[in-house]
Amino acid sequence: MRAEIVGIGTELLLGEIANTNAQWISGRLAEIGVDVVHHQVVGDNVERIADAFHLALSRSDVVIATGGLGPTQDDVTREALASAIGVRLVRDRTIEEAIRARFARVGREMPESNLRQADVPEGGRVIAARRGTAPGLVCEVGSSRIYVLPGVPVEMQEMMEDQVLPELARAAGPSTIASRAIRCVGIAESRVAELVDDLFRESTNPTIAFLAGGGEVRVRLTAKARTREEAEAMIAPLAAEVERRIGDSVYGSDAESLEEVVGRLLASSGRTLACAESLTGGELGARITSVPGASAYFLGSAVCYSPASKRDLLGVPAHVLEEPGSVSRECAAAMARGARSLYRADVALALTGAAGPEPHGAAEPGLVWIALEADGVSHQRAIRAPGDRSMIRRWAEQAALDLIRRHLRGLPLPESDRVV
Amino acid sequence: MRAEIVGIGTELLLGEIANTNAQWISGRLAEIGVDVVHHQVVGDNVERIADAFHLALSRSDVVIATGGLGPTQDDVTREALASAIGVRLVRDRTIEEAIRARFARVGREMPESNLRQADVPEGGRVIAARRGTAPGLVCEVGSSRIYVLPGVPVEMQEMMEDQVLPELARAAGPSTIASRAIRCVGIAESRVAELVDDLFRESTNPTIAFLAGGGEVRVRLTAKARTREEAEAMIAPLAAEVERRIGDSVYGSDAESLEEVVGRLLASSGRTLACAESLTGGELGARITSVPGASAYFLGSAVCYSPASKRDLLGVPAHVLEEPGSVSRECAAAMARGARSLYRADVALALTGAAGPEPHGAAEPGLVWIALEADGVSHQRAIRAPGDRSMIRRWAEQAALDLIRRHLRGLPLPESDRVV
Repeated sequence: MRAEIVGIGTELLLGEIANTNAQWISGRLAEIGVDVVHHQVVGDNVERIADAFHLALSRSDVVIATGGLGPTQDDVTREALASAIGVRLVRDRTIEEAIRARFARVGREMPESNLRQADVPEGGRVIAARRGTAPGLVCEVGSSRIYVLPGVPVEMQEMMEDQVLPELARAAGPSTIASRAIRCVGIAESRVAELVDDLFRESTNPTIAFLAGGGEVRVRLTAKARTREEAEAMIAPLAAEVERRIGDSVYGSDAESLEEVVGRLLASSGRTLACAESLTGGELGARITSVPGASAYFLGSAVCYSPASKRDLLGVPAHVLEEPGSVSRECAAAMARGARSLYRADVALALTGAAGPEPHGAAEPGLVWIALEADGVSHQRAIRAPGDRSMIRRWAEQAALDLIRRHLRGLPLPESDRVV
Repeated sequence: MRAEIVGIGTELLLGEIANTNAQWISGRLAEIGVDVVHHQVVGDNVERIADAFHLALSRSDVVIATGGLGPTQDDVTREALASAIGVRLVRDRTIEEAIRARFARVGREMPESNLRQADVPEGGRVIAARRGTAPGLVCEVGSSRIYVLPGVPVEMQEMMEDQVLPELARAAGPSTIASRAIRCVGIAESRVAELVDDLFRESTNPTIAFLAGGGEVRVRLTAKARTREEAEAMIAPLAAEVERRIGDSVYGSDAESLEEVVGRLLASSGRTLACAESLTGGELGARITSVPGASAYFLGSAVCYSPASKRDLLGVPAHVLEEPGSVSRECAAAMARGARSLYRADVALALTGAAGPEPHGAAEPGLVWIALEADGVSHQRAIRAPGDRSMIRRWAEQAALDLIRRHLRGLPLPESDRVV
């Protein structure tokens, strides 16, 4: 099955954004064994969009287009689709009612232009929007099929996962791809690559790939077989060997994030967590509470960005704040003890460091102290994180989450980076 | 002058990388007034690359292709170019010598396949490589011109800066593009579109476009003129009119985020801020502290995810937590008062609500109470945010930041959404 992706939006042609929708869709289609043969990008122009659809339908079995489904005047993909396949647009009463209801629910007046989102090419199907108001559209044209999806990545991705990928996987027939991502934290990409180098060179199906980013390393195994079960059976022994070699730096697999793994460990052990944050400004708490159900184990985080608040809220001694200062082992330990007592938590994590771009006193950007306090455990470690402000914060959070993961699993707690 | 960008490489079609070359080239061409009308992406396949070149040359004045110039067997762009324009490849002796010399210098044996990089379509020109071995190629085809550049971004960018952009700027004549984004918060995209509908329909230069996302709406004005100053002078009166119509929902322009605007207002007024967060889990503090220099005005945020911590840290009365509960006007107000006193801040913001997916007591997901406390000001409002957990949190933060923006600028503070 040959597929083509058509990106629609003048912002793509002006270079304001990269066509990450095409990248995401391409990757997902590859996983189910659909060959992507072309990408096109056109602006918000009825004729050029219609021409792009014509060309794509003439050479591909399936066309997936993104963008131009919104309520404003420059959203003309619906009109272009109807024109390209030579049918009228018909207003769908169910969608119309849903749009009206949505506005009524939030008590806002509905501009009439919103109803354009209820227009469907005659003979076409609709993909319901879980969020947003614009539904996706599906039309059969001869032996080809065209899907038109919203340009907002999260809306597009939901429709792909809910409907487009399952439909195409069924149509693509008995060759499929399965893959598994093994997620590692607290270990360098080059070290991971070294540990599995012979497997990387010798294994062609499954293949092995490495991806580093966001303070972690992923090892992706991808197998091609007649069925998903067969492909997964090919992955299982290789995955076990890769995990054995990397050891306890492996924290999980696939879509489960480090904060989800920590949440699961906290929930199953019945323990509660509180944090004290300085350089991350609340981001650690935000990540922990991004997991639905976090209120079962997370009590809160005292974000203390000033020395006075570290003293007043967390009880960091004034002499510590003066010397060795707020980016120190002593300060991190006192912050964690303070948060544990303030929230009456079983376990507390603290983070303090220099996020840059300026040094924080004597601490160069990238130096971060992390502390964990629990019954019978008082552990601190320093790391040196690379990159800019947001990358340093991300690495700090990963190291803090890894510390509590190791504590809850009874694994050895890592010491400070050697350079510190 | 109409331009088209052709990306070549199977890795693009597999979704392994995004087509950031097309984004970069598009942005640079816009700056010199060249209209990019299409992007295409094809794999490393002679016929399909040749077809893409044919199509591009048939509808564009200038084609810029990237990728497939390397020394390995899958690099076939040279052959495809020669085939598309119907000429032979001729080995360029100067390039051949340069390649041989390069290998001799590092003392490595040269695989013969490297000499393919010295092949040039008959009648074509060469763009010298400052690094790497693959030169770029330029061919004139009828009234069109095609540039073929390496896919490695830094090599491509050097050839663009050194040769392609200066050549095209001369050919495009005295014409350039400037654009401005007007950023709005607390107003629906469709309402913005309605307010400027006649301008949208009547103004062709500058053009107007809308983009919604992240709890805000952007209106982009783009003008084409002989010089940047002229283009900016064309934008200025239209921007003023658009801003006048949208009114105080306009918070800023271009790359400046809402948290930066709030930071600037706090810094210039010498006031300090503290927060109390429930549903956002620390994300509001994280956004405020993502701005370098935030320690000048931000003291901290008390993230209180449990009822006990709302009572113990922030002094929310126990009877309020029981009835009307933690998602209420009374609780939000008490949280803001608590944070203001705890951190001894001039202004405090509080956020409490139901982020979903489950209701929070009687509160349906999306219901959020926001409170602001300052000298002589005690204001609370409720909003109903759409979408999933992360979208609800984002909308809550935008509404909170907008509240303090309005307070610091002396603008009227909005009341609750009507349905609440």
